[in-house]
Amino acid sequence: MTAVRRVVLGSPLPTAQEVHHRLTKIKALAVFSSDALSSVAYATEEILLVLVVAGTGALGLSMPIGLVIAGLLAVVGTSYYQTIHGYPSGGGAYIVAHDNLGAWPGLTAAAALLIDYVLTVAVSVTAGVAAITSAFPVLCPFRVELCLLAILCVAWANLRGVRESGTVFAIPTYAFTFIFLMLLVVGAIRLATGTIAPISAGVVPAAGGGAQALTAFLILRAFASGCTAMTGIEAISNGIPAFQKPEPNNAGKTLIAMIALLMAMFLGITFLARGLGVVPLDHETVVSQVGRHVFGGGPLYLALQAGTALILILAANTSFAGFPRLSSILAHDRYLPRQLSNLGDRLVFHNGIIALALLASVLIVIFGGQTHRLIPLYAVGVFLAFTLSQAGMVRHWHKHGGQGWQLKAAVNGLGAVSTCAVLAVIVASKFTHGAWMVILLIPILIWLFHTIRRHYLNVAEQLSLDGLRPEKWTGLASRKRHKVVLPLSGMHRGTLAALRFARSLSQDVTAVVVDVEPEVTARVQEKWPSWGQQVLLVVLESPYRSTMGPLLAYLDELDQREPERGLAVVVLPEFVTARWWHHLLHNQTAQLIKNVLVYQRGHTAKDRVIIDVPYHLRR
Amino acid sequence: MTAVRRVVLGSPLPTAQEVHHRLTKIKALAVFSSDALSSVAYATEEILLVLVVAGTGALGLSMPIGLVIAGLLAVVGTSYYQTIHGYPSGGGAYIVAHDNLGAWPGLTAAAALLIDYVLTVAVSVTAGVAAITSAFPVLCPFRVELCLLAILCVAWANLRGVRESGTVFAIPTYAFTFIFLMLLVVGAIRLATGTIAPISAGVVPAAGGGAQALTAFLILRAFASGCTAMTGIEAISNGIPAFQKPEPNNAGKTLIAMIALLMAMFLGITFLARGLGVVPLDHETVVSQVGRHVFGGGPLYLALQAGTALILILAANTSFAGFPRLSSILAHDRYLPRQLSNLGDRLVFHNGIIALALLASVLIVIFGGQTHRLIPLYAVGVFLAFTLSQAGMVRHWHKHGGQGWQLKAAVNGLGAVSTCAVLAVIVASKFTHGAWMVILLIPILIWLFHTIRRHYLNVAEQLSLDGLRPEKWTGLASRKRHKVVLPLSGMHRGTLAALRFARSLSQDVTAVVVDVEPEVTARVQEKWPSWGQQVLLVVLESPYRSTMGPLLAYLDELDQREPERGLAVVVLPEFVTARWWHHLLHNQTAQLIKNVLVYQRGHTAKDRVIIDVPYHLRR
Repeated sequence: MTAVRRVVLGSPLPTAQEVHHRLTKIKALAVFSSDALSSVAYATEEILLVLVVAGTGALGLSMPIGLVIAGLLAVVGTSYYQTIHGYPSGGGAYIVAHDNLGAWPGLTAAAALLIDYVLTVAVSVTAGVAAITSAFPVLCPFRVELCLLAILCVAWANLRGVRESGTVFAIPTYAFTFIFLMLLVVGAIRLATGTIAPISAGVVPAAGGGAQALTAFLILRAFASGCTAMTGIEAISNGIPAFQKPEPNNAGKTLIAMIALLMAMFLGITFLARGLGVVPLDHETVVSQVGRHVFGGGPLYLALQAGTALILILAANTSFAGFPRLSSILAHDRYLPRQLSNLGDRLVFHNGIIALALLASVLIVIFGGQTHRLIPLYAVGVFLAFTLSQAGMVRHWHKHGGQGWQLKAAVNGLGAVSTCAVLAVIVASKFTHGAWMVILLIPILIWLFHTIRRHYLNVAEQLSLDGLRPEKWTGLASRKRHKVVLPLSGMHRGTLAALRFARSLSQDVTAVVVDVEPEVTARVQEKWPSWGQQVLLVVLESPYRSTMGPLLAYLDELDQREPERGLAVVVLPEFVTARWWHHLLHNQTAQLIKNVLVYQRGHTAKDRVIIDVPYHLRR
Repeated sequence: MTAVRRVVLGSPLPTAQEVHHRLTKIKALAVFSSDALSSVAYATEEILLVLVVAGTGALGLSMPIGLVIAGLLAVVGTSYYQTIHGYPSGGGAYIVAHDNLGAWPGLTAAAALLIDYVLTVAVSVTAGVAAITSAFPVLCPFRVELCLLAILCVAWANLRGVRESGTVFAIPTYAFTFIFLMLLVVGAIRLATGTIAPISAGVVPAAGGGAQALTAFLILRAFASGCTAMTGIEAISNGIPAFQKPEPNNAGKTLIAMIALLMAMFLGITFLARGLGVVPLDHETVVSQVGRHVFGGGPLYLALQAGTALILILAANTSFAGFPRLSSILAHDRYLPRQLSNLGDRLVFHNGIIALALLASVLIVIFGGQTHRLIPLYAVGVFLAFTLSQAGMVRHWHKHGGQGWQLKAAVNGLGAVSTCAVLAVIVASKFTHGAWMVILLIPILIWLFHTIRRHYLNVAEQLSLDGLRPEKWTGLASRKRHKVVLPLSGMHRGTLAALRFARSLSQDVTAVVVDVEPEVTARVQEKWPSWGQQVLLVVLESPYRSTMGPLLAYLDELDQREPERGLAVVVLPEFVTARWWHHLLHNQTAQLIKNVLVYQRGHTAKDRVIIDVPYHLRR
């Protein structure tokens, strides 16, 4: 078991090594920007998919919509640049909103972000698999299986530790960026020089025949769909502690590089798709169509598809960095189970990684591995978190003042207002397409956070030493006064060991046999005179053949005799088999008794001491 | 939980009531003969299904085949009548073969019977559901679901206790017998008076067009299929202890009544089916065709189908009496896990009932709920057990002598020879149709029986007191000499209770904190001077953030200091949450430590005493 673990996950890392696991800017850009950059693989397509229902003529609107989104990107990017410097220790939306706006907005942001991380994994992985099936349609039926395999791989890489994931992911991210920029340049040149013709206009649009009217609502929906291009830009500000020192400077520079790349790539592909007259299809992505047309289906085309698939699948990695980190922060604040804050032996929050992988897998299975069915759920959480985070920053500058705080507050305020407007557009235009699920889930999650926190506070209060006086606990109870009960299921070596221990504990020991099998009882009674070490043997009747009933009744009765001596202590002889499966061949009475006595809940629960005396079989 | 259990299963029954749970002859006939009698619902059909592949002309052979089977029934019935009187306390094939032929033949019989009980449930339930779907073809797609529902009902009735199943099952068994005999009488009269015409001969046979040659092999296979009519006649001799006193006389009379009824019904339906020229169909059973034709599809027909379905589904009940009883005998002889010999609080072997229900359900799901696919597996086990049981009886009479033992031995000898011949026919003619599975499974089961028994003997030897001298165990270890270790995960009320108990146990107590979370360690160190009761506090480094590693190393080191004082004893403070699901919100370190220390296996395993000091939270 340990050996397998070591091979799969690597050797344990000492805590002292934690600080060394920092990312260079080059690696950090790969780890934290894959989510943002990879959205160029589907954002343009989502715009076209909405517009095409109004006929292919409406597709021309994709360029103005793309420009508006690029403008928004610049605004939000600037806003996050300020966040990085305002929160050099990591300014996720939860922390910023919690610190500046209070607990409720903070938890709302946290719920939105958690949902969003899960959706990022699901959307990225399904889109990545779509890139593969565009090139190899024969793989289409295995879409869901491929998605789950991809999640498994990313989760595994993350369980091995964050620095190694930086190495694993840097090459594909840069390869994708390179081939994608090459696609844009070659495509633009060929269009300008007229060496390429538009894709034949005769292709039937995926969304069916009858064209709808091109309403303002439809345009807003196309815009809302395109805003998925902005997902992921908050990753860097959440992940500042993973950067090398000085963290905020390095993170800020990385953010600028990422925003610049993202704007160039998104506008480029939108422009090229328009120039080539691409119409969205069921079985092939827009990027694949553009690539096949520009590169001509050769090795460059395959490299583009491979790069797209890889970066999308690796984009999920942004969430595998962010989700465990955020959930460990929430767990530390008692809003989530504390197991999520346990640092594993590879210095990662392994429970968070596993939880994220499971949740995303469930989503993918439910939605059949189809990107366009997941998109309407996607952007709600992102933009809600954007808005709360930037509103929090306005408050932050106001509180802390400093040089030129008014300008900083204005920048963040502009960000907050514009992302809030986008959020309103998304909710309104996508509500019936699935956004309602997210809007329903957020208050449920907030309620859960509160319930969990209330439980922890409750427990802390019940266990607290406040109000107790140490003197009361230091008096030494006389050793001889313990009432000790030794339940027997037969006479054997294990019994003798337990009997010896019981006698070392007190002079008041009673051995007890519950008479379920008369021949066993008879055998114990026969051997007791020579082996019983002068201890009293009591036989309990069991008319209904239950072991626990008579034993519990006897213990209760004993507790009531001389109550000042406390509860009776139970000594349990237990033989432990040499192999775990041998275990299946025995009645496990000792374990049953232990569980019932210790984990009995409700008003009958007693703080009874249980002493387990194991006797190991050797074969 | 207890309340639900009580409503579903009834109140617990005291052991003393066991002897009263005996069956009258009338009820015993219902409980033990439903398997045998119900086989008339499919045995004739199985003969016809084989013959029809040689063309409808070959169907005439069903009468002579039926007569041979009826003769065999008389022989085997007489043989079992003798077994009942030779083994008045219950003479199942396992006991008879084990006592007279030795352990290996006994275990072979046991394996054959266990397989057979499972198949009886599967075949009876699928055939019963076929009777329902013959009348209501709309239910065909839910065949498997209906089968599983039926198994659930029968298992539930049996979990409530055997007398109640007698009451539940008597009425349908007698109702079926009555309506079936009425079908035969009415059919015979209408045939004799010429008021009924044969079913139109134009029906296409189910098995397809091209007729095969009518070979001797085909006839033998039809005979082998028809022998399923004999399944279940051993049930009475296995179940003698359930009869009222004098058990053997009552059981013998019940057996005669059952054999007479079975012969009459089997020959009757075979004759009538032939007289009406019935051809087996895919979607309707032979009995249903005869019934529809004789009764004309009215309420009598529906009553026949309902009765057939009920008795078949209830036939499974024979196995629910036999399987748990046999497996409890095997468990008592250490060939099966001892849990199978636990008498539940309703005086039934509940684990056997549950195991049988699960195994039969799996078979039904695998074989798609189709009777004819299960039949080839069915008769192998039955006839193997018949042969071994009767060969054992020959030996029995030979050993015990008594008046006229030679005649008795001859009768059983004839039974053994004829059932052995049938077994050979079945194996030869059905091998490739599925009989091979059973032939493969029997040695595997025997190997399993032996492995289990060897384990129990091994354990008994290791735990035995033989060779130990009581004097060695009676010396009292000085109480002060225990080395006691108290692992802490924080300072709270639970810790105080554990500390107090530890101090009452020995003067050599050490409290231990594993330094996984520095702030927790600091808090313990800060509070220790006032709350530590002068006990030494040791902080263990944990560079890899594991709690168990440093703790185990510390304990090992302590064990080696003054080894004559024995292993260190561990006292574990454990707080128990008020609701089980609160449990999910805590790290469960105490349980982890307990499990690792007690259930550690292999050469590092130590018989270390673990003391659990629970502290119950109240909300």
